Amino acid sequence: MHYQPRPEDVRFLLNAVLDAPSRLNALAPFAEVDQALQSQVLEEAARFVGEVVAPINREGDEVGCRFDEGDVIAPPGFRAAYQGFVDGGWPALSAATEDGGQGLPAVLEAVLYEWLAAANHGFTMAPALLHGAYACLKHHASEELKQRYLQKIATGEWLATMCLTEAHAGSDLGQVRTRAEQQVDGSLRVSGGKIFISGGEHDLTPNIVHLVLCRLPDAPAGPKGLSLVLVPKLLPDGTRNAVHCERIEEKMGLHSSPTCSMRFDDATGWLVGEPGHGLAAMFVMMNSARLHVALQGIGLLDTAWQKADAYASERRQMRAPGPVPASRGNEPADLIAEHPAIRRILDTQRAWIDGARTLAYRSALMLDVAVHDADPKARERAQRWCAMVTPVLKAVCTQQAFHGASECLQVFGGHGYVREWGIEQVVRDARVTMIYEGTNEIQAIDLLVRKVLPDGGAAMSAVLLELRDTLDASREADADVQRRLAQLRYMGTTVAMAAHANPVLPYEVADDYLRVVALAMMAWAWARIEAADEAVATDGPGRAMRARAAAAFRRWVLPEFEMRLGIVKRACETVALTHSAAAVQPRGVAQ
Amino acid sequence: MHYQPRPEDVRFLLNAVLDAPSRLNALAPFAEVDQALQSQVLEEAARFVGEVVAPINREGDEVGCRFDEGDVIAPPGFRAAYQGFVDGGWPALSAATEDGGQGLPAVLEAVLYEWLAAANHGFTMAPALLHGAYACLKHHASEELKQRYLQKIATGEWLATMCLTEAHAGSDLGQVRTRAEQQVDGSLRVSGGKIFISGGEHDLTPNIVHLVLCRLPDAPAGPKGLSLVLVPKLLPDGTRNAVHCERIEEKMGLHSSPTCSMRFDDATGWLVGEPGHGLAAMFVMMNSARLHVALQGIGLLDTAWQKADAYASERRQMRAPGPVPASRGNEPADLIAEHPAIRRILDTQRAWIDGARTLAYRSALMLDVAVHDADPKARERAQRWCAMVTPVLKAVCTQQAFHGASECLQVFGGHGYVREWGIEQVVRDARVTMIYEGTNEIQAIDLLVRKVLPDGGAAMSAVLLELRDTLDASREADADVQRRLAQLRYMGTTVAMAAHANPVLPYEVADDYLRVVALAMMAWAWARIEAADEAVATDGPGRAMRARAAAAFRRWVLPEFEMRLGIVKRACETVALTHSAAAVQPRGVAQ
Repeated sequence: MHYQPRPEDVRFLLNAVLDAPSRLNALAPFAEVDQALQSQVLEEAARFVGEVVAPINREGDEVGCRFDEGDVIAPPGFRAAYQGFVDGGWPALSAATEDGGQGLPAVLEAVLYEWLAAANHGFTMAPALLHGAYACLKHHASEELKQRYLQKIATGEWLATMCLTEAHAGSDLGQVRTRAEQQVDGSLRVSGGKIFISGGEHDLTPNIVHLVLCRLPDAPAGPKGLSLVLVPKLLPDGTRNAVHCERIEEKMGLHSSPTCSMRFDDATGWLVGEPGHGLAAMFVMMNSARLHVALQGIGLLDTAWQKADAYASERRQMRAPGPVPASRGNEPADLIAEHPAIRRILDTQRAWIDGARTLAYRSALMLDVAVHDADPKARERAQRWCAMVTPVLKAVCTQQAFHGASECLQVFGGHGYVREWGIEQVVRDARVTMIYEGTNEIQAIDLLVRKVLPDGGAAMSAVLLELRDTLDASREADADVQRRLAQLRYMGTTVAMAAHANPVLPYEVADDYLRVVALAMMAWAWARIEAADEAVATDGPGRAMRARAAAAFRRWVLPEFEMRLGIVKRACETVALTHSAAAVQPRGVAQ
Repeated sequence: MHYQPRPEDVRFLLNAVLDAPSRLNALAPFAEVDQALQSQVLEEAARFVGEVVAPINREGDEVGCRFDEGDVIAPPGFRAAYQGFVDGGWPALSAATEDGGQGLPAVLEAVLYEWLAAANHGFTMAPALLHGAYACLKHHASEELKQRYLQKIATGEWLATMCLTEAHAGSDLGQVRTRAEQQVDGSLRVSGGKIFISGGEHDLTPNIVHLVLCRLPDAPAGPKGLSLVLVPKLLPDGTRNAVHCERIEEKMGLHSSPTCSMRFDDATGWLVGEPGHGLAAMFVMMNSARLHVALQGIGLLDTAWQKADAYASERRQMRAPGPVPASRGNEPADLIAEHPAIRRILDTQRAWIDGARTLAYRSALMLDVAVHDADPKARERAQRWCAMVTPVLKAVCTQQAFHGASECLQVFGGHGYVREWGIEQVVRDARVTMIYEGTNEIQAIDLLVRKVLPDGGAAMSAVLLELRDTLDASREADADVQRRLAQLRYMGTTVAMAAHANPVLPYEVADDYLRVVALAMMAWAWARIEAADEAVATDGPGRAMRARAAAAFRRWVLPEFEMRLGIVKRACETVALTHSAAAVQPRGVAQ
């Protein structure tokens, strides 16, 4: 079966839980983007994704990309689907209208990309980098470069890449060695090798625009010596630039997206932004790019869930314990969906999907608010939310995509392990999301070491208070979340103090800290979803599914909150003990 | 890099922790199997595995098995390696000497199979089923069948299969439809289709002996109507029997082991055991087979760990936080092994490997005791241990193989996702171990519903008391384990009471119950390992590694114990509340 987006589930979260339509309407550029238009965009997106993108997923995995003497040939159907994507105006959904875009909110684009990844992760990789390249050029490129490239990229007519990684420089970009030398005509000559370049070469678009992190002569060592250079595959005069794909990687999954080793041999390029500010120019799109990876995780988990749910509703094995299920009829065995172990898997993954969606869509809304709100304080709050929540979502949604997809595979028993059912592809594809766009370990360090601790936890505390203020303490579930948010704020202070005594500690507990934050936020999301379901009070399969998911969340997922909190606390206590012991020791020795 | 067994690590666990040599010497058949002989067997096994089996693993994954009009061709090097395996006497390690075996203890065979799986999971699948087939025929086959097949199987000259699963009957063997009809000459004619048959066809041995679960005419419906029939590929007169491989599955991993769909068209066979006792005849080898899957899990995790450990000791990225590590030298970046996030992954997986090894080797020892001890009480105790601990180890070791291998993949960053490094193969291969030989969900139900609850937790309690008595309460770590074992015994009673009120409850918390048991037993293992390291008091890399792993276990792994305990407790409390409410309600209503 192919993935089929279910706009009604998403609409409930956007409208009833997040009040997205009226929040967006309050932003000047989206004054006209009413609920009906938003719904219409989602319906169209669901149709395109379900009818065009999903059906070519399986063959994309099996055939994969083909490397042929420097050329890369996309799997069957990919060229036509991508052309349809461009023709439908999908790449330019949130780009400014003056650049050829549709000027729609980031939150609608977020939903589109979640569904794309669910339907066909490999296909999604092609346009996924456009948005970063667009934002990067929009903010940092010269007028001349913008004239030449901005609209082509906004509309997806040309695709783009991010050339960061080198064989010896993965997470550590400061070690980048690719060189760029200034020419008299203002251009640069770029030389070096880059690896792991998604879409470095392909036949989907005539031109490919590479944004290359490199080092100018006399640049200082480390990350401050890096500059960003635009290197097109085809030069403005139509001739081939000296940038070539040397090979594509054989990977665990994501076979329909070519991962290229690129060679730059005195290739012609132009500086984007100031020399030495390459990282800053790339980091402009960091929150958006990381949020999109989180959305890929959510989409991949949803596709795994759809497959497992469908299988569990057809496959019969053994009698389920307890009262006779209505589905039994005269069958000698019950649906596996009636077995508690399978029910638990399905409801737990559903809890992750809709909880994470709520947080991710809220973050996408905040991307819109951060740019378009008339109130600078509101923009600042939105920016703060994105800074704090994006690494959390990137890490937990991708972690859950892989582990949850594996749980969904388990629903199939032995059939899950064979390719035929497509579920094992989801597991293989999902695995990379835990690595790219900053490994999940780096997200955790980004959150705790770079964002929470520098101001002693103040900004995170403000985000948590903001969440607290949306809750209704008279509701039991809400009061429970408030308690957790308070514990989390207290924990922030504890870690900050312990970090003074032992600066290594935050690196040791960063993963646990991130999980505690994620679980508290998921609890917030589920409290809000339940409140919305009560308020809207329409019965239906969506509501029943959410009620089961909410119960599964409290029963099986949330207990990890206390466990992680305990791990962090004990680590801090150990530091406190060691520290006071150390403070006493030297005096004892000196006497 | 290829997997290389490290006998010294295993020897420490067998000798210093488990006192295996003297325990084995106390059993009559192993009176001569002294520590020197055991060491020698392990050294030879390590050499064979490292030199012959490990080097063909990668090509086995890439080339895979080839299906050619009913024939199956093993990947390059597999035939020669298997011949070497047979010539070395390895398949017959624990088979009785009168059957052509070496009569060595099951525990040495356990270590051999752990290493084999670590080196080459696909290769290991071929001989892995021999032991079950051997035990099954030894206990249940007629003298004539034994004459014909027992020695061939014991020595591995012919390989064997277990033909259980049918398309509609996976976990639910009661639904098996393959028919067998009695012939006048005493043979049977078998007809039907079986799927997921590992090694159903191949070119490693001239003959293949299938043990087929089928239904005789007039057999009752359900599992009690099943009989076991031996169906050889070649009949005693050398002609081909009517059993054929129709296709092999395309799988997520394990490409070098053919997973066959088999067709029996009036194939000739002979009954093994009594009609209608087919399941009983197969279940004779259940504990041993499941323990072997647990050992595969341990081996796969160890191979992932070896790869990650080697990579982390070479790859440099960024500065590690904290004091300057000795390994820094003049390098611009530190070894990733010095980064806390990577250190945590490596030490945590090491904790799982050596803790699980201790429990698995103890179980293998108990298999020997259960058969060979002169004292019937000791045999009974050993049997009880195996019954309780085997499902626990099957589930947690395979779960950890997949999840821990994925953690090890993460150590490689983007390089982990490409095939080149071999780590992604471990993740793909490991995934199947959570499914076959009874899914992990079925292990949990087997433990709680079928083994713990029927006697109100008495047998499990006895196993836990046995563990408690090995501990020294004056040691802090041991006292901590004793507390946990007591909590676990109490929890058993709680669940048994709650199950009376709600018979579905045990199915809902079976996974959590199994994890609590596993974590308490792991804590026991680590307390014993640490005590042994203190007692032996030899410094070295092994001891340092174990000390880090012990700390990681307490810090990152063991906290799950309280979390799972809490989940089970709350579920039982909810039942108690509902139950007392229900008990009150009817009277209220009646009045």
